Amino acid sequence: MAIVLGRNRYGKAETRLVHVARGGDSHRLVDLNVSVALSGDLAATHLRGDNAGVLPTDTMKNTVYAFAREHGVGSPEAFGLLLARHFVGTQPQIDTATVSIEAYAWERLGPHSFRRSGDFVRTAGVTVGGAGAQVVSGLKDLVLLNTTDSEFHGYPRDRYTTLPETTDRILATAVDARWRHLTDDTDWDASFGGAHNALVEAFVDTYSHSLQQTLYAMGERVLAERPELAEIRLALPNKHHYLADLAPFGLDNPREVFIAGDRPYGLIEGTVTRDDAPPASAEWYL
Amino acid sequence: MAIVLGRNRYGKAETRLVHVARGGDSHRLVDLNVSVALSGDLAATHLRGDNAGVLPTDTMKNTVYAFAREHGVGSPEAFGLLLARHFVGTQPQIDTATVSIEAYAWERLGPHSFRRSGDFVRTAGVTVGGAGAQVVSGLKDLVLLNTTDSEFHGYPRDRYTTLPETTDRILATAVDARWRHLTDDTDWDASFGGAHNALVEAFVDTYSHSLQQTLYAMGERVLAERPELAEIRLALPNKHHYLADLAPFGLDNPREVFIAGDRPYGLIEGTVTRDDAPPASAEWYL
Amino acid sequence: MAIVLGRNRYGKAETRLVHVARGGDSHRLVDLNVSVALSGDLAATHLRGDNAGVLPTDTMKNTVYAFAREHGVGSPEAFGLLLARHFVGTQPQIDTATVSIEAYAWERLGPHSFRRSGDFVRTAGVTVGGAGAQVVSGLKDLVLLNTTDSEFHGYPRDRYTTLPETTDRILATAVDARWRHLTDDTDWDASFGGAHNALVEAFVDTYSHSLQQTLYAMGERVLAERPELAEIRLALPNKHHYLADLAPFGLDNPREVFIAGDRPYGLIEGTVTRDDAPPASAEWYL
Amino acid sequence: MAIVLGRNRYGKAETRLVHVARGGDSHRLVDLNVSVALSGDLAATHLRGDNAGVLPTDTMKNTVYAFAREHGVGSPEAFGLLLARHFVGTQPQIDTATVSIEAYAWERLGPHSFRRSGDFVRTAGVTVGGAGAQVVSGLKDLVLLNTTDSEFHGYPRDRYTTLPETTDRILATAVDARWRHLTDDTDWDASFGGAHNALVEAFVDTYSHSLQQTLYAMGERVLAERPELAEIRLALPNKHHYLADLAPFGLDNPREVFIAGDRPYGLIEGTVTRDDAPPASAEWYL
Repeated sequence: MAIVLGRNRYGKAETRLVHVARGGDSHRLVDLNVSVALSGDLAATHLRGDNAGVLPTDTMKNTVYAFAREHGVGSPEAFGLLLARHFVGTQPQIDTATVSIEAYAWERLGPHSFRRSGDFVRTAGVTVGGAGAQVVSGLKDLVLLNTTDSEFHGYPRDRYTTLPETTDRILATAVDARWRHLTDDTDWDASFGGAHNALVEAFVDTYSHSLQQTLYAMGERVLAERPELAEIRLALPNKHHYLADLAPFGLDNPREVFIAGDRPYGLIEGTVTRDDAPPASAEWYL
Repeated sequence: MAIVLGRNRYGKAETRLVHVARGGDSHRLVDLNVSVALSGDLAATHLRGDNAGVLPTDTMKNTVYAFAREHGVGSPEAFGLLLARHFVGTQPQIDTATVSIEAYAWERLGPHSFRRSGDFVRTAGVTVGGAGAQVVSGLKDLVLLNTTDSEFHGYPRDRYTTLPETTDRILATAVDARWRHLTDDTDWDASFGGAHNALVEAFVDTYSHSLQQTLYAMGERVLAERPELAEIRLALPNKHHYLADLAPFGLDNPREVFIAGDRPYGLIEGTVTRDDAPPASAEWYL
Repeated sequence: MAIVLGRNRYGKAETRLVHVARGGDSHRLVDLNVSVALSGDLAATHLRGDNAGVLPTDTMKNTVYAFAREHGVGSPEAFGLLLARHFVGTQPQIDTATVSIEAYAWERLGPHSFRRSGDFVRTAGVTVGGAGAQVVSGLKDLVLLNTTDSEFHGYPRDRYTTLPETTDRILATAVDARWRHLTDDTDWDASFGGAHNALVEAFVDTYSHSLQQTLYAMGERVLAERPELAEIRLALPNKHHYLADLAPFGLDNPREVFIAGDRPYGLIEGTVTRDDAPPASAEWYL
Repeated sequence: MAIVLGRNRYGKAETRLVHVARGGDSHRLVDLNVSVALSGDLAATHLRGDNAGVLPTDTMKNTVYAFAREHGVGSPEAFGLLLARHFVGTQPQIDTATVSIEAYAWERLGPHSFRRSGDFVRTAGVTVGGAGAQVVSGLKDLVLLNTTDSEFHGYPRDRYTTLPETTDRILATAVDARWRHLTDDTDWDASFGGAHNALVEAFVDTYSHSLQQTLYAMGERVLAERPELAEIRLALPNKHHYLADLAPFGLDNPREVFIAGDRPYGLIEGTVTRDDAPPASAEWYL
């Protein structure tokens, strides 16, 4: 028995980059939060404090800003690929680079004026390593709600069950979704827009018997509409809305007044995949 | 010298109410966070633990939900007035009631489907007391940015000054604004919409020599366009965007690549008022 | 009727200063979050974009760091006084300076090793202006809980009351307290330590009939023990713990199993004062 | 090619349980945040909305509270094992249950009085499935700092490197650690206490050439001292403290005045393991 170093990686997290493209009649604004993680042969620094292979995380930060000037910033996926390939390509001891990006949307108010949109955060996760490049797109903090067309009944009952069955409830969730691309070359913005629309439309259209059913419908819709995608993972909190009990006040409550709950909440997690999807790299499962 | 009870109040904070109006072809959704604070002759409970005058905060919460059913929920200002008048009108020992509301916006996706909008939070603060009713409307978390038309120079320099003067910078802020109404009876939603538009348009239109100047322009525009308002308070963080220094990498940076800073940040606070505005109640200054 | 500039101030918020004193056998560590706000004759910048009187907020930040080196950093109150007097003393157009400080505690682990203590945050607010210097000390995020010796009954009932009376409940709160000093010259650390102890001991010792009663007992204890203080303000959320209803499972619950609630929560705010306390400056009431 | 359901699970997150043991001279307080996730044959609900196998998440919440009364609450690991075994043992369609717990510490102030300690949060993650029970203990939010005995130099330089080498810097981090037990039966509290001490002592004792080296030293110390553990994972943000540049003010800065940075930050992640550690279940890698 010996104590040894296992899996490890390191990097610079949350480099905040704002890029303004000033050409043309109106400015364009890109607002990103970029995190870099590198792994490879890093035993020397862990075991002996020998940093000959440790590209400083400060250099990673500098590279993000310099690349924004040298290459411009388009979609987060493309910018992530550029960065990840650079680190793997220039640091011989590094075999895998992961670049994770949050992109904040801004709505145009004028030629050089913007309002930050809080509807959701777009995400991208790029891993470049031995097996090539894996690109994952996604979004989070997209809060959706149906006021009806949601039931929940037919579930098993045990000694600890008190939940009444319902044929009409509010269904609300904050969508956290990530989808894996089949290739590392597509129209990233068009693909994102299509996946986002499919998620929203499936939530709106699905008559739900459980949030699990809605989750699957959302994932299935995305894969059905986007042939460039291999699979999709969804984590959907069930943001409970409890019908207020107004009977003590001599009032009925025909599904009109609800208490929005904080904790606890349900949490439904699932993957929808193509049965012939190629294998994913380890980062997909994190 | 004696130790005595000073100013005090108590209440229930953050009652989360969701109201669904199901009449008609499509549902309507109102999503509020309601806080109630009452003050009056409360010495007995503080000094002797005598609760004969202490309406439980639990009852305040119940009243919020019951009123939503009994009266419906329109604008947050109207709902706040209803609640505040109820508490002052029914609890003889209470002379002042303040109801503070955050209203979360939802965008319609279908007849009974919604997406929560994160562009800003609408606020309302109603105080009912001896001097009548004071109504304050507002918004917060509205993030605005101009990529140009902002300068900052001509400031005093001392031993500790290092900031270079600039004739072209990014100006960004998260608007936190509250405006006080002259009366307790107006079209609250129209007034809010008009004030919101005036704030945004003044930010977009103003060629800025300081965030203070932009603040005043925003406040002035609101008062100029909304005769029903007495005054407006603005708290504008200066969300600094630092030009990245790319010279060490042999690159120029023609105002294209910026570092979005977290802390520290500037904080500009100011009031714009009518010179004949009637006096405000104490809650206005909190 | 004209539209005019009202009350205003500006400054640099949340300058994060860590100071290491290396003299002697073991290092000393001070960790502060410093916010500065200045007010005075600032009409020119608001109305005309003339910045001749606007000391940049960047300079305020620089001053914080430079003063830490020039003067060292002792108690937050003393450091705040130094800074506030500097700004009022060197900027003729500025008549009032407020310095607000959060101090984070670190527990010593060795001569140069520390663990950040999360038990509470110490605060200081210094205002230097025409009326001299006002010093306010305080703390926040100090979470206290009694498992018994707390009752709540005897309150008024109306149509919306459902709360059962109780003679034994959990009482829990997160203390947010600020106390105003009579002078600007005392042993700040000893005073803080004494006030902190008095707050905690009064919470522990008080048999409570309401959180209001506990609030008053805490404030009274502080003033009784600390003659250097004029008054104290407390904001105490009532962090509700609901007895879990285990009857559906055939179980009793002799005040053993509780649900810790998030929202809504009670919020009890009050001041305890000396009847001969000198008047406070406006910042005290914010 | 077909679209199919992939990995999935569901549960109730963040059930907030406070348990008071009132026997004896002084009360004991346990404060937990319990999350449950179940997986198994859940295709019917995803694909057809058939909930016959879906134990409601509401029932999971009830079970947490009922078990606290029926079995008491000792260590979070033991309570998690009890719950996870119950769900797998009573729901035939469920093959794996994971219970994740955060435990908040309270310091005793008196026989029935407590102060919440914010020094760190203890965590436990229990997975019961086909391969038996995996128990993971851990902690997070433990913030440690050394004011010296930390160097960083000898790293590779490329076009984007600007970081100066240093032989004396502040090293600070917020420890997030999880360690996997070899068995499901040990003295959980003693094991936790020992691992916690080993982590802290290794941080204090290690003369650091990189945070990676410190990470490895911390992990190695834990495994060396705790034979009941198989491996440990650490995620250590490098909380940068930048030496303030005071030269423009004519001041030196002999490592005395630092700017505490927020973002970006380094993030060092690594595992230290026994070379004969038995394989882990999937939850270990999440």
